[in-house]
Amino acid sequence: MIDVYSWPTPNGHKVHIMLEECGLPYRVHAVNIGAGDQFRPDFLKISPNNKIPAIVDDEGTDGQPFALFESGAILVYLASKAGRFLGNTDREKFTTLQWLMFQMGGVGPMLGQAHHFRIYAPEQIEYAVNRYTNEAKRLYGVIDKQVAQHAYLAGDEYTIADIATWPWLRSWQNQGIDWADYPNAKRWFDEIEARPAVQRGVQVLADARKPLVDDKARENLFGATQYEKR
Amino acid sequence: MIDVYSWPTPNGHKVHIMLEECGLPYRVHAVNIGAGDQFRPDFLKISPNNKIPAIVDDEGTDGQPFALFESGAILVYLASKAGRFLGNTDREKFTTLQWLMFQMGGVGPMLGQAHHFRIYAPEQIEYAVNRYTNEAKRLYGVIDKQVAQHAYLAGDEYTIADIATWPWLRSWQNQGIDWADYPNAKRWFDEIEARPAVQRGVQVLADARKPLVDDKARENLFGATQYEKR
Repeated sequence: MIDVYSWPTPNGHKVHIMLEECGLPYRVHAVNIGAGDQFRPDFLKISPNNKIPAIVDDEGTDGQPFALFESGAILVYLASKAGRFLGNTDREKFTTLQWLMFQMGGVGPMLGQAHHFRIYAPEQIEYAVNRYTNEAKRLYGVIDKQVAQHAYLAGDEYTIADIATWPWLRSWQNQGIDWADYPNAKRWFDEIEARPAVQRGVQVLADARKPLVDDKARENLFGATQYEKR
Repeated sequence: MIDVYSWPTPNGHKVHIMLEECGLPYRVHAVNIGAGDQFRPDFLKISPNNKIPAIVDDEGTDGQPFALFESGAILVYLASKAGRFLGNTDREKFTTLQWLMFQMGGVGPMLGQAHHFRIYAPEQIEYAVNRYTNEAKRLYGVIDKQVAQHAYLAGDEYTIADIATWPWLRSWQNQGIDWADYPNAKRWFDEIEARPAVQRGVQVLADARKPLVDDKARENLFGATQYEKR
């Protein structure tokens, strides 16, 4: 059994979708990042960077419990465990890893900044909005070119690179994106969206999330560095 | 022979250091990102995200030439090829990958934003400076706690997680960091800095880089999306 400590954000969805795709048994535990649960000492023990998602597999590859954080590492771990969505040859595996890293180092952090400055920041800062909107468009352009040439990001097969990237593109409206500019990426996006496991994955914890409305949630998401009892 | 297309930035240094640590034969090709070389069509063929570093190994694991971009993927590839700095057991390997992902998704992108808003942006935006300086401090705090408990990020052994993270912390002054606040991280940093392979790695292409002085370099680094002939 895999215990998943998570929240319905793009990084959480990656792992929820992967678990559904692989059919691995899991149970999910809500870590409400708007309420500051990510700073609780028991969570920090398994995720010292105070980020969701994290997992504890009660049967790691050596038979002992194994805790892991960072969505990208969790995807590689689950792919290895299930023997799926990573590619078969070394060439395929490293190409998958390359596009997973593109998501981890580019798509995730930069679209996250676009969300921040376009939606969440308390002041509208034109320079930052433009910087991250332009970077969002550049990244969609890279994806569009790649899936114009291949069915999926890492080639002919659906992999964890797609599973990692797709949840971030669900928020295209918050990123200033017009799908008409990226028809190949849209084809890729729609095809993944239609997968039953993806549809199940995005429903995980969906009811737990409430809109960001108060200053306390804002502080926990964008300012706090430790858990504060209330 | 491994051909390395690179520039002396933190992401470039990761790969230069790794090649020196492993003693793998390589030759380096300068991709002057201030001059816009990253948008040249021949570079985009191996690095469609227009980022350095990228490599072409004329003898991939299947004996055929193999091209790879994304510094994190390159580190895993080289570690696998050399059989070093990745850990031995699955538990060690996934723990290394976890901390490598922490660098790829957090340390790199966020310290990069700190550099941008603290040093390079044409206007001083207090909100953004504070946002990324605070995040830099949080990340140094995570590292400090980890290396207070272990010799290196992923445990007792020096791994690609350290090789990936160290080059980003060389610019601590540009990130608003006072080492006095992070004594464990400083011990870790100094120990890695003293390694001969690290000292050789940071000298790779060191003479090629010129200071950022003109608007054209600024445009290529922060605005352009394609190569422009001059």
